[in-house]
Amino acid sequence: MVKVGIFGAASLISGKLLELLVDHPNVEISYLTSESFSGKTLEASFRGRFRGLLDFKFESYSANKNKMIDKCDVVFLSKPHGGPYQVASEILASGIKVIDLSADFRLKDSQVFAKWYKLHGNDASDYFDKEYFDLLDKAVYGLPELYGKEIANADIVANPGCYATCAILGLAPLVKEKLILEDSIIIDSYSGVSGAGKSQPENNQFIDLNENIKPYKIGTHQHTPEMEQELSRLYGGDLKVLFSPHVMPIDVGITSTIYVKYAKKLSYKELSDLYNDFYNNHPFVRIFDDNSLPQVKDVANTNFCDIGFSVNDRTERLIISSVIDNTIKGAAGQAIQNMNLMFGFDEVAGLPYGQALKKRISLNAMKV
Amino acid sequence: MVKVGIFGAASLISGKLLELLVDHPNVEISYLTSESFSGKTLEASFRGRFRGLLDFKFESYSANKNKMIDKCDVVFLSKPHGGPYQVASEILASGIKVIDLSADFRLKDSQVFAKWYKLHGNDASDYFDKEYFDLLDKAVYGLPELYGKEIANADIVANPGCYATCAILGLAPLVKEKLILEDSIIIDSYSGVSGAGKSQPENNQFIDLNENIKPYKIGTHQHTPEMEQELSRLYGGDLKVLFSPHVMPIDVGITSTIYVKYAKKLSYKELSDLYNDFYNNHPFVRIFDDNSLPQVKDVANTNFCDIGFSVNDRTERLIISSVIDNTIKGAAGQAIQNMNLMFGFDEVAGLPYGQALKKRISLNAMKV
Amino acid sequence: MVKVGIFGAASLISGKLLELLVDHPNVEISYLTSESFSGKTLEASFRGRFRGLLDFKFESYSANKNKMIDKCDVVFLSKPHGGPYQVASEILASGIKVIDLSADFRLKDSQVFAKWYKLHGNDASDYFDKEYFDLLDKAVYGLPELYGKEIANADIVANPGCYATCAILGLAPLVKEKLILEDSIIIDSYSGVSGAGKSQPENNQFIDLNENIKPYKIGTHQHTPEMEQELSRLYGGDLKVLFSPHVMPIDVGITSTIYVKYAKKLSYKELSDLYNDFYNNHPFVRIFDDNSLPQVKDVANTNFCDIGFSVNDRTERLIISSVIDNTIKGAAGQAIQNMNLMFGFDEVAGLPYGQALKKRISLNAMKV
Amino acid sequence: MVKVGIFGAASLISGKLLELLVDHPNVEISYLTSESFSGKTLEASFRGRFRGLLDFKFESYSANKNKMIDKCDVVFLSKPHGGPYQVASEILASGIKVIDLSADFRLKDSQVFAKWYKLHGNDASDYFDKEYFDLLDKAVYGLPELYGKEIANADIVANPGCYATCAILGLAPLVKEKLILEDSIIIDSYSGVSGAGKSQPENNQFIDLNENIKPYKIGTHQHTPEMEQELSRLYGGDLKVLFSPHVMPIDVGITSTIYVKYAKKLSYKELSDLYNDFYNNHPFVRIFDDNSLPQVKDVANTNFCDIGFSVNDRTERLIISSVIDNTIKGAAGQAIQNMNLMFGFDEVAGLPYGQALKKRISLNAMKV
Repeated sequence: MVKVGIFGAASLISGKLLELLVDHPNVEISYLTSESFSGKTLEASFRGRFRGLLDFKFESYSANKNKMIDKCDVVFLSKPHGGPYQVASEILASGIKVIDLSADFRLKDSQVFAKWYKLHGNDASDYFDKEYFDLLDKAVYGLPELYGKEIANADIVANPGCYATCAILGLAPLVKEKLILEDSIIIDSYSGVSGAGKSQPENNQFIDLNENIKPYKIGTHQHTPEMEQELSRLYGGDLKVLFSPHVMPIDVGITSTIYVKYAKKLSYKELSDLYNDFYNNHPFVRIFDDNSLPQVKDVANTNFCDIGFSVNDRTERLIISSVIDNTIKGAAGQAIQNMNLMFGFDEVAGLPYGQALKKRISLNAMKV
Repeated sequence: MVKVGIFGAASLISGKLLELLVDHPNVEISYLTSESFSGKTLEASFRGRFRGLLDFKFESYSANKNKMIDKCDVVFLSKPHGGPYQVASEILASGIKVIDLSADFRLKDSQVFAKWYKLHGNDASDYFDKEYFDLLDKAVYGLPELYGKEIANADIVANPGCYATCAILGLAPLVKEKLILEDSIIIDSYSGVSGAGKSQPENNQFIDLNENIKPYKIGTHQHTPEMEQELSRLYGGDLKVLFSPHVMPIDVGITSTIYVKYAKKLSYKELSDLYNDFYNNHPFVRIFDDNSLPQVKDVANTNFCDIGFSVNDRTERLIISSVIDNTIKGAAGQAIQNMNLMFGFDEVAGLPYGQALKKRISLNAMKV
Repeated sequence: MVKVGIFGAASLISGKLLELLVDHPNVEISYLTSESFSGKTLEASFRGRFRGLLDFKFESYSANKNKMIDKCDVVFLSKPHGGPYQVASEILASGIKVIDLSADFRLKDSQVFAKWYKLHGNDASDYFDKEYFDLLDKAVYGLPELYGKEIANADIVANPGCYATCAILGLAPLVKEKLILEDSIIIDSYSGVSGAGKSQPENNQFIDLNENIKPYKIGTHQHTPEMEQELSRLYGGDLKVLFSPHVMPIDVGITSTIYVKYAKKLSYKELSDLYNDFYNNHPFVRIFDDNSLPQVKDVANTNFCDIGFSVNDRTERLIISSVIDNTIKGAAGQAIQNMNLMFGFDEVAGLPYGQALKKRISLNAMKV
Repeated sequence: MVKVGIFGAASLISGKLLELLVDHPNVEISYLTSESFSGKTLEASFRGRFRGLLDFKFESYSANKNKMIDKCDVVFLSKPHGGPYQVASEILASGIKVIDLSADFRLKDSQVFAKWYKLHGNDASDYFDKEYFDLLDKAVYGLPELYGKEIANADIVANPGCYATCAILGLAPLVKEKLILEDSIIIDSYSGVSGAGKSQPENNQFIDLNENIKPYKIGTHQHTPEMEQELSRLYGGDLKVLFSPHVMPIDVGITSTIYVKYAKKLSYKELSDLYNDFYNNHPFVRIFDDNSLPQVKDVANTNFCDIGFSVNDRTERLIISSVIDNTIKGAAGQAIQNMNLMFGFDEVAGLPYGQALKKRISLNAMKV
């Protein structure tokens, strides 16, 4: 059994990590830290949800760093970006694997990171030192459908952003095959309220969000450069996207409606074949090739990314509908998928429908 | 035109007051105060809702008390209980009428007030002085269906609690006629999230309330003594109630399911006749006498209290279903209904369906 | 008092019409028809909502056509498209004004109508006769911000589609000034469930829509040609749009996020000036020129269309955020606004905040 | 691997069964029937939810009864009450175990069943024949916390009603110890919309339920006699309850607030000890003994029943708060818990947190 710790374990996403890890066949939850809740039971952050399941108190990492290091084989970091990457560094230095759910190591260009995340002074020369660049060098972008092999060999993985996961998976096959016009990508996304976590209650009151839609950071959201980095790499050249997020009054889920102009006319069949081929061996991406569109409720509480299409020849556009559960495939589930790859477990272990998917993967393998 | 001010004008309920007052035919909104938002436009608390309708900045009352007094004929106080009742005193002393939406003057027994509201030391001898008792003496409990005449002559009205309004109106006819067993009253209520206002965001996050129910203060909620005071007065003897509130994930509305053991068997017809008679001249109480039960959505955004019944002879109980919009009949609407009576306006003026109700009242009057 | 009838009065939108008309200062509701509910009280369709306000039974129009004609000065038609336009014809022939909330007379090109609405055989030669074309000729497109004068003189008005209202108002100033690239318009819209009415319960179950988003008819929705007709007229040339609707789990409201490539760089200030000028005398359009974006909850239960902007020079795009209450500005409220113009009432009469807006309009007029 | 079939597999609850069974370590889903969807894929009822997980078509049971019998070791029946109990009889006769999710075999007194469920003529003499009584005789009431041993030996189990499960578990310890006044039990419950299934869309439209509460069948709901049967048995004498259900706008969950007069004063500590003892070996009942109350969101998607208390000496009452997920502990989860007992699997196998609970049970066993 691999021993797992969580740094920042009182967060909303840590709740999802705990929910999944507690039933994971290959791991044992061993250490949970939270500076603000240290000394308190899990109830302080999670009410009665984990009663009878988990008997932990939140520990202070800073008060006793060695304890976490002694108790864990892998640590999930669940803190906002721009936090003390020293934690990652310290943990890693002790030979413990790290899966970082923040944005700290997602962007390979630190200047881009500084600018979009508005770090100190926007160039953040004070922030980035040799230690940071060492970590950045080692960190693998944790999107298993694109970087499975690299992740398997990584000591530190940068878990992707939720919006970025949904958009990149939705666009990857088209972009890789250069089937779109470069300046035409628009990603219009609606996220459930869980996307905001629990740390800013004044911005996330029921009375303000219920029966409402909140558009925000249109064209300026910090997941934009993450999408551009990965799509440009696939494309083999610079791509820009216009990304437009909104908050909608549901708990979990991201619905992305993605617009591109096509470089050449594609039939619905060609489009779905392209996607089916691209995601052939990836159990968590499901392609809708029967003229239906995926709905976000059908991926809630799962690690799936469901993708469907519309072809609009009147305006020479393709419209991709990509949906995920932002807390699972967009965060905790993907982090566990990464952990599975890093430790050689089944990719699907401990994830919703893990047993069923494992059976199907074996059956498919036998067919070949 | 009567000039109206609001003290504590940035609150959620003040938003409802503004929404109704801005279209009231007999009044002019003239002064809005908020200590915490002073100097800011209404947008600071209400986003774009009042754009193009109201051009005010929040003023500081404490910085210039005379300004409010100069500009207003009546002031609504929208502050939590136990606040500076001196404000009410100062305003009233200047000959301005006061409608207080807090609990400060609802309870005639100050010791009961101190105990249930947990004022300083629970007996609050330091809190209650001659000034307070003078005000308490003058204050009329602002439930127009019970105290219409007193309200018409009052200079200060204590606007009832939302839960109390819903429960008292639901029980008044039965209690007045002594048709129930004394120790049998249970009031089970579910309130929309607006009941909590906007000042405690950490307790009212979307992610905690959506798809959830939060029972709280069962048997200990501070509206209990208000219900008991008014029901005991109607009954002519001490009555106790067990009041059990819950928060439900909707914006507005209270649904109260009220259980009593009957003192003698009553038919459905007798019951509905009793209520129809009791509320005969009261346009805002609607009696459901056709075996249907009222639903809270049908009173949303109105000043109605809808009441229906179930007779359960198996257990010798009557069940009363009483529903209101907590922000209207439970707060802002009832406050305006009180203002209408205090100034001799039509009781229904400026309230939702005011024109239609005025026509019907005239028609009914002509019939007689 | 103008006497008002509704044909198809049991519909969800008729409920909104009744809600507004019952308090309208210049009208009297006089006749309500519904073939399927004929003989029943309003409760059959509206539960207890109109108790104590409206004492009507639904009548059968077909059983006694003269009765409606005798009792009304104006009739709202609230039936799906492709219904018996003969009703409009009969009513109009009796000198009664007609406001049609269906799509029947919105599209000036009947072939376009037949194709997008999938009328019999898609060319619908059997459907369109002289009577139809006569009506079509007389019908004015009922968007008061564009056709105020024509509406004032019209006997029959085609009330616009909800999505079309939101999109056209959002784009009109830019399109009129030719500030956009022709093939770049994308309209991404999310509508509350009320948009679907009440006639297809199997598609609108709570359990399917709650905590979900349903994309549908992407690029093929029937409001597309209505947007294109009006935008092309403003532009002075053919414009195509890609319109992409979704259903979201709220009661009322449309949020449209509209993407265009700009023909030349525009500052935020130039953009908001352009919109402020265009909508200068139109009380129901509110321009957000302070870098905030409108939220749909702030227009719920009002006749406002709120419009805000984002300028994205990275991708040379403007993004327009346009929000309405689909049941008010998108249907019943706009229909009443049209009626007001047709009968010479105040444009704002009987609409939410009508009194407040009337006062402001007078004040503004005095300033000039 | 035990082979599992579902009769009526297109229902909402069957969706939950499939969701759980597909990952159950000891079973294989082998046959799914639906008369109305026969020949169609699962998508016809479940949209994209089971893509990539389950490749079944709905079969017609009536067209080929032997096929189900050949393919299954156990069959879940998911049909409304009063349906063809012959199906249960036929299946059982072939040596296949049956878990019936309808009400057909819950009530031991068939006259009570006929009356509350309004079967043909209310005495239903035509309905009940020898075959029925034979089955009724064999059927065990499937509440594992009360009938664990009987269930382990049963061939046919009557899975309890959702409201009944929540109420009986909430009251069992108090009733068994005769700590309450006989005529004092009131059960006030709020259920998520999933409780209504999917077969009556006209009663479960989003637009009618969202932002609303629907009280219904107050004192007359058909789960009343089920509660009374089981509580009377525990009590050793006839008990009546007043049960009052409401529909609330959330997907899953039942919140029951249960009122009783106590027969003698009980401290909070005595009360929680009583419950802790009673449910000591039952992993799915969690007792809240720290003055907090359970919230329904914390049991969503789990098989837990969470129970908390309030003691109200002012009115000599105890208030029990009992919450479950109506689709899991109230239906599909409890059915699987029953199956586990019938086949000698771990009681917690295949249920949410099954692995974690199994570990804890082993640890506890070792302690002893």
